[in-house]
Amino acid sequence: MKTLIKNGLVVNATGTGMADVLIDGETIAAVVAPGSTLLGFNLESNVDVVIDVTGRYVIPGGVDAHTHMEMPFGGTNASDTFETGTRAAAWGGTTSIVDFVVQYPGENPLERYNAWQAKAAGNCAIDYGFHQILSDVQDSSLTAMDELIEEGVSSFKLFMAYKGVFLSDDGQILKAMQKGASNGALMMMHAENGSVIDVLVSQAIAAGNTSPYHHGLTRPWQAEEEATHRAIMLANLTGAPLYVVHVSAKQAVDQIAMARDNGQNVFGETCPQYLYLSLEEQLGASSDEWGTFEGAKWVCSTPLRSRAEGHQHHMWQALRTNDIQMVSTDHCPFCMKGQKDMGLADFSKIPNGIGSVEHRMDLMYQGVVDGHITLPRWVELTSTTPARMFGMYGKKGVIQPGADGDVVVYDPKGHTSIGVQKTHHMNMDYSAWEGYEIDGHVDTVISRGKVVVDNNQYVGTKGDGKYFKRGLSQYLI
Amino acid sequence: MKTLIKNGLVVNATGTGMADVLIDGETIAAVVAPGSTLLGFNLESNVDVVIDVTGRYVIPGGVDAHTHMEMPFGGTNASDTFETGTRAAAWGGTTSIVDFVVQYPGENPLERYNAWQAKAAGNCAIDYGFHQILSDVQDSSLTAMDELIEEGVSSFKLFMAYKGVFLSDDGQILKAMQKGASNGALMMMHAENGSVIDVLVSQAIAAGNTSPYHHGLTRPWQAEEEATHRAIMLANLTGAPLYVVHVSAKQAVDQIAMARDNGQNVFGETCPQYLYLSLEEQLGASSDEWGTFEGAKWVCSTPLRSRAEGHQHHMWQALRTNDIQMVSTDHCPFCMKGQKDMGLADFSKIPNGIGSVEHRMDLMYQGVVDGHITLPRWVELTSTTPARMFGMYGKKGVIQPGADGDVVVYDPKGHTSIGVQKTHHMNMDYSAWEGYEIDGHVDTVISRGKVVVDNNQYVGTKGDGKYFKRGLSQYLI
Amino acid sequence: MKTLIKNGLVVNATGTGMADVLIDGETIAAVVAPGSTLLGFNLESNVDVVIDVTGRYVIPGGVDAHTHMEMPFGGTNASDTFETGTRAAAWGGTTSIVDFVVQYPGENPLERYNAWQAKAAGNCAIDYGFHQILSDVQDSSLTAMDELIEEGVSSFKLFMAYKGVFLSDDGQILKAMQKGASNGALMMMHAENGSVIDVLVSQAIAAGNTSPYHHGLTRPWQAEEEATHRAIMLANLTGAPLYVVHVSAKQAVDQIAMARDNGQNVFGETCPQYLYLSLEEQLGASSDEWGTFEGAKWVCSTPLRSRAEGHQHHMWQALRTNDIQMVSTDHCPFCMKGQKDMGLADFSKIPNGIGSVEHRMDLMYQGVVDGHITLPRWVELTSTTPARMFGMYGKKGVIQPGADGDVVVYDPKGHTSIGVQKTHHMNMDYSAWEGYEIDGHVDTVISRGKVVVDNNQYVGTKGDGKYFKRGLSQYLI
Amino acid sequence: MKTLIKNGLVVNATGTGMADVLIDGETIAAVVAPGSTLLGFNLESNVDVVIDVTGRYVIPGGVDAHTHMEMPFGGTNASDTFETGTRAAAWGGTTSIVDFVVQYPGENPLERYNAWQAKAAGNCAIDYGFHQILSDVQDSSLTAMDELIEEGVSSFKLFMAYKGVFLSDDGQILKAMQKGASNGALMMMHAENGSVIDVLVSQAIAAGNTSPYHHGLTRPWQAEEEATHRAIMLANLTGAPLYVVHVSAKQAVDQIAMARDNGQNVFGETCPQYLYLSLEEQLGASSDEWGTFEGAKWVCSTPLRSRAEGHQHHMWQALRTNDIQMVSTDHCPFCMKGQKDMGLADFSKIPNGIGSVEHRMDLMYQGVVDGHITLPRWVELTSTTPARMFGMYGKKGVIQPGADGDVVVYDPKGHTSIGVQKTHHMNMDYSAWEGYEIDGHVDTVISRGKVVVDNNQYVGTKGDGKYFKRGLSQYLI
Ligand SMILES: [Zn+2]
Ligand SMILES: [Zn+2]
Ligand SMILES: [Zn+2]
Ligand SMILES: [Zn+2]
Ligand SMILES: [Zn+2]
Ligand SMILES: [Zn+2]
Ligand SMILES: [Zn+2]
Ligand SMILES: [Zn+2]
Repeated sequence: MKTLIKNGLVVNATGTGMADVLIDGETIAAVVAPGSTLLGFNLESNVDVVIDVTGRYVIPGGVDAHTHMEMPFGGTNASDTFETGTRAAAWGGTTSIVDFVVQYPGENPLERYNAWQAKAAGNCAIDYGFHQILSDVQDSSLTAMDELIEEGVSSFKLFMAYKGVFLSDDGQILKAMQKGASNGALMMMHAENGSVIDVLVSQAIAAGNTSPYHHGLTRPWQAEEEATHRAIMLANLTGAPLYVVHVSAKQAVDQIAMARDNGQNVFGETCPQYLYLSLEEQLGASSDEWGTFEGAKWVCSTPLRSRAEGHQHHMWQALRTNDIQMVSTDHCPFCMKGQKDMGLADFSKIPNGIGSVEHRMDLMYQGVVDGHITLPRWVELTSTTPARMFGMYGKKGVIQPGADGDVVVYDPKGHTSIGVQKTHHMNMDYSAWEGYEIDGHVDTVISRGKVVVDNNQYVGTKGDGKYFKRGLSQYLI
Repeated sequence: MKTLIKNGLVVNATGTGMADVLIDGETIAAVVAPGSTLLGFNLESNVDVVIDVTGRYVIPGGVDAHTHMEMPFGGTNASDTFETGTRAAAWGGTTSIVDFVVQYPGENPLERYNAWQAKAAGNCAIDYGFHQILSDVQDSSLTAMDELIEEGVSSFKLFMAYKGVFLSDDGQILKAMQKGASNGALMMMHAENGSVIDVLVSQAIAAGNTSPYHHGLTRPWQAEEEATHRAIMLANLTGAPLYVVHVSAKQAVDQIAMARDNGQNVFGETCPQYLYLSLEEQLGASSDEWGTFEGAKWVCSTPLRSRAEGHQHHMWQALRTNDIQMVSTDHCPFCMKGQKDMGLADFSKIPNGIGSVEHRMDLMYQGVVDGHITLPRWVELTSTTPARMFGMYGKKGVIQPGADGDVVVYDPKGHTSIGVQKTHHMNMDYSAWEGYEIDGHVDTVISRGKVVVDNNQYVGTKGDGKYFKRGLSQYLI
Repeated sequence: MKTLIKNGLVVNATGTGMADVLIDGETIAAVVAPGSTLLGFNLESNVDVVIDVTGRYVIPGGVDAHTHMEMPFGGTNASDTFETGTRAAAWGGTTSIVDFVVQYPGENPLERYNAWQAKAAGNCAIDYGFHQILSDVQDSSLTAMDELIEEGVSSFKLFMAYKGVFLSDDGQILKAMQKGASNGALMMMHAENGSVIDVLVSQAIAAGNTSPYHHGLTRPWQAEEEATHRAIMLANLTGAPLYVVHVSAKQAVDQIAMARDNGQNVFGETCPQYLYLSLEEQLGASSDEWGTFEGAKWVCSTPLRSRAEGHQHHMWQALRTNDIQMVSTDHCPFCMKGQKDMGLADFSKIPNGIGSVEHRMDLMYQGVVDGHITLPRWVELTSTTPARMFGMYGKKGVIQPGADGDVVVYDPKGHTSIGVQKTHHMNMDYSAWEGYEIDGHVDTVISRGKVVVDNNQYVGTKGDGKYFKRGLSQYLI
Repeated sequence: MKTLIKNGLVVNATGTGMADVLIDGETIAAVVAPGSTLLGFNLESNVDVVIDVTGRYVIPGGVDAHTHMEMPFGGTNASDTFETGTRAAAWGGTTSIVDFVVQYPGENPLERYNAWQAKAAGNCAIDYGFHQILSDVQDSSLTAMDELIEEGVSSFKLFMAYKGVFLSDDGQILKAMQKGASNGALMMMHAENGSVIDVLVSQAIAAGNTSPYHHGLTRPWQAEEEATHRAIMLANLTGAPLYVVHVSAKQAVDQIAMARDNGQNVFGETCPQYLYLSLEEQLGASSDEWGTFEGAKWVCSTPLRSRAEGHQHHMWQALRTNDIQMVSTDHCPFCMKGQKDMGLADFSKIPNGIGSVEHRMDLMYQGVVDGHITLPRWVELTSTTPARMFGMYGKKGVIQPGADGDVVVYDPKGHTSIGVQKTHHMNMDYSAWEGYEIDGHVDTVISRGKVVVDNNQYVGTKGDGKYFKRGLSQYLI
């Protein structure tokens, strides 16, 4: 199967250029000057499919490096399976995800890794890789880190919150980071001070403050800033590279910026929700249907932050200055009915998570339209840097020969209306992005050479996606 | 003329990939998977020249955005003409320079621009563009800025030092920056407090401290840090983007880092001399031939800084953290005999400048070998970012279809010995880099599709290089 | 003449204590436990006057280290003479001022000093000292600095604004600071970038923006921050101690804080107007009488800053953290009629200055009432630190034996209404503080043992005040 | 008993003045101009004792706010009892200590407070107060905080290290700080990340690195910086004032400085050992007697820091800039034989502590001689600020009427040689300060009006010292 995508503006991380892209089988075979007859040889007449994308952008498929498909959490599972979640991702122009294998205390990381491989195998619409979550860092966990790197799992996530579930204490984090410093693994951190948050939550519930709004109030920016700084210091002490997930507080950004100015390999990821949504507007929302429990739709951690405090504005700036390097979704959807509503009487019982895997590329493109970021920066934040950060670059994250044929045709003159009755393929009974309007449209999505979305149709097949064996980070300085 | 460069590792700013590069005429026509028969069509047998670069790097030609060919200064001229200087650049893997048109007080900027065009026309070995130096910012200068942008001169350099020669006062700088903020020009700044330096120099000379070492002592880091901060504040006030040339003091780097963390479009350039050389070792050198005047070989401004103070180490770090974005040479060579020796009795009479245009790519590659930077970062610092910064990207700074056929084949297993009796094509009677050994070698240099250096031979012709009409900066955030 | 002030709460800079204060002649002879019969000896029956101050505060007389009595400026003179201005100061609990001798370009500093001594001699109600303003730093100025220190003038003020009137260029400042570093003089700086301001003012006037509000807009915080940083760097380079006058921008405060954290002897003074008043409310005011020219009442430099930008709030904080060390008035009054109205058509013609010498102690006490500062901090900011900073401590700035009998009895249960028809003894036809209500009252003011204000009466005599020969700063670290 | 100290230079925190000090009973009754006949009355002939201190300093007695007399720790007790320790303090010019009541997990804070009162009662040479250590912050602990404030215990110390012994987790710290924010208590923090240190210690011991030098290496500056930042953030979140004990790392100082610049009530204490001693010279020492175990003499926590890293130099600077506000000793002595030698085979078994209570005033005075601090700053750091910080000012920390008669006569022309065979009254078999020579001498020490040390004799009696019931901090901004 040979496909020629012609007359598009190819957008890579450092700039743009008019070029035709030839995909041969699963791989990009050539990038050629547009309309080139290439020394007399007519490419167009020798391929199976020609897609004319005049006036549109040709970008490397999105890489969402932070998803939680069917993750077990708080007695329920994230509502998207690998099947539904990756299909929704494809709809939105994302052609690779990196999901998290969960290891709870006492469990064996390698066994869990195998279990997750089994869950995903044959079910995915797009390619997928895995990070490994470590909770209690046992001696066997340290050994497993070496083995998992061999398996293509080169990044390990630790938690400074969720005591008894995920939390590692600082000594455990230290040991895992020492291992990371020696074997090249990238250490990922959920940076919130759980011990502080647990007290604040207890106090809030005891005081009768049970609504979702208090989820935000009981996870103050200080808890994130503190944990971020602590993680940075542990990284400094060990020499490990550090990647802070879902940064939402501007003060945490400042800590990351200082560490970087100081020469440390410290990186930060943010998510669309921290750029667009807020404590006041979403967590504080109420509706006819749900009353003040409406806010439960946006209960996630780190929480949505106060717009009055200016976090959202600061986060867009940090994307420009590269103090935050990339945008993932932390996709972890739950339905309101039967899942989120477990916390009707107590916000701390609400499963934490928002579903966005379908909308990330669109939401970030809107940042281009709104003047927050440039067109190349859009690609860099959503595809190139995620690929480099997590050892996928070359195959993913760039339009160049030898790369996987993961290509998205994006139409800047198109339009996308987000909402459960509109664009919505995630397995959720609501949309966290209801009513958002995007001045652009994902026209065609090609995954390893195969068109999977086109003309507003999903034309792929369950199992199209393969496991991606990642290398070490290609972004370290 | 069709050339195929096959089996190389193409290095772009975000990463590497094995690919063959096809140049058709002056332009890159295609980048294809290595060894690809491309749908049955045999590229290799249809081109004029095939260059097999197995085991070597294929990089976009170097862009040196700061040179001063035959610049009149202090009663003499920089010793490299456009002819000799650009040929030396080609020898070193640089295929584009951006030189400075000089406007002295009272002169008309446009007239000077035309004069410089005349000097360069027909003489250059590689492509060239121009920045415009403004001294007294007359009302007509502000008008000229608009006109020069139309001519492809989209960056304007001001000086905070050299009173009576180049210096603009803060009010003049303000006016130029206001214009830059409105027309998109990038404002470049020589950031040293000339008023302070003039006093220190007078005091040193009066005290009998006349040797080149005192050139360094009378231009202390405080003078650079102060001016850098001042330029940043004027940029902040006006909204103009700012590019600080030849940053050498770590404290100046810190000012730039702070401005960037704060969201300002502030950029810094450094030069190889600030990474490798020092006050103690070079300005303080003595020799049989020249005694303590030996240091005159390295008299440039900003000056070489004290190694004891740690500037060099900090500058390499800043290259990693992107607090400094690119590396130019500030190539401004003078011979010791007949030029530098004008200052035998008074260091302030020594023409300021070092010649490095030939060695930048090699010296920075050595930074890869030494573990300071990565391979893609090497290309980013020396080619991609300079091209983006100064509105040349797409044609320059990247290996992609549609780009100019400016390609360098670099051999990581080769070796280069620098010295006047060894590799030295600049018109100077000494080398500032005498004795430097590089663990790599520029094998082949192609400029707009034409091989100009190959097999340690210059095979180009005077006049190969054309004027490059630059656009606005493509690097602004 | 012996006076016993009994039963008061003596407030010094580090804390308070109940104590009786005995003044013998011009000097505090003893501080004794209240009601003490002192080994059987009855103090009370052996003195000439007993003042019972039960329930009130006994504080060292205020030291206002920044006044401009009858200063020639812009073709007119500040409207308070040494006679009227020092009498108003006494009314407000200030018993010492340090005024500025003006040296314009070409003038001899020592001659000017003598002229100022002549102006003040025999006219003052309270003690006075002098700072010396230097404009063009001639070689003879540097010599004069040594001589003036012998005369008790140990601080020298330079200007980075007011070109052609006061401005010294950076080289001149450097030379003066080198001298200060060697002879111990404290260098004072008016830190605003005059070159930038002159352009902005010209542009505003040319655009028809002639009202007082534009005085504020054309002196933006960047101009102050920049000059503050520049002064700090020149101080860093020379080793001179630096005192920045009338700091109003929070960004300038940050520069001072950074310099201090870095170990430099850098100090900042603010004034009541920068704590209470703003661009929006005062410079932007309009009235029936004056229209938008109403704002002229508050035209001073540095200007009142935007409340929306938060400078006032930050300045109170800096007073708490000691990033700003003291509060002076920069008293420089002009009448609206015949003086300020010179700028009716052009704000740049409005004489710059506000009159506050009478109200500083009250306005800062209100800061205690409002919870901004503590009671001892009030005394430290207005009396102790000014005395230490300018070499007067021991005689001024503290209640202790051997100190001058400069004592103020302040009633925290009293009340003071400020306004031209109310408390107003300055020679001005309006009050910059009209309508301000103070929850406290200056009951009694004693200057070198003589009661000069009591029971809302001025009971002193012209000429009571003597010249104070100051020593070097006692505040350096 | 009436004592007149005549002809001395009284040194208070803001400056000096010649004055005679009259003590009547236990209290300073008057401070009078020297040689004053006070309205004809001859003080000198009416007192019991006249001490002529011509040429010497009269200072408020030292306040050492951090001591651990006979503290149970690691199966042994600090070797100084309240009797021996306070007597040694008196020898050194310290007239007040604040010691720590220890509450271990499960214990009742109030009971422990009573136990400590019993230990001290009748045994002390000088006045003493108590801080309360809290470990597990039980609900009853929070209640006890209110009750203890009534008892004069207004400061509470928590530990971020020593798991299972002292450590409070962050949630517990949060709760204690919430209480402190509401009742005005000052929260003290031992800021080291114990979880990290425990791992590093285990790894060192497992690797056979058992000598005292490794005590330093396993408590790296990152562990202190991190915990300091964490404590600051918890204080920020709750609004509690924070006092960080025994700050030794320059990076921790920077965190404190930033918090203060930001307006937080955050304070830092350092100790003489962090100013003078180092990892390399002391922890790394070896001797004939002890071999490399010699370093055990200086095993304390936080540890002595590397001189190569520059902490000591930075700490002196921080004392000048007031980024560190005061100097205590953390006096916690252990003998080498029978105590320190418990750790011969394992540095982690060495009881942590250094004895310095006798030498603090001398060691800090040497800082005046060496040009690090001024004479008034010496008094401020060692007496006035400690008194203000911990609610003792007025009675302690100042020479003024109404203050306790705690006065030290210090001779700047005297000399003190420190060493076990020289000046040494602490109950230790070695001196941590052996060989230190001080260019000054404690001549006379008066505690509440009674001479307790004079003429190199201890002339006091066990039980002279009384419990001091402290108020809330008088240093908050
Ligand atoms: Zn998380
Ligand atoms: Zn940065
Ligand atoms: Zn997550
Ligand atoms: Zn240059
Ligand atoms: Zn003034
Ligand atoms: Zn401790
Ligand atoms: Zn500070
Ligand atoms: Zn302790």
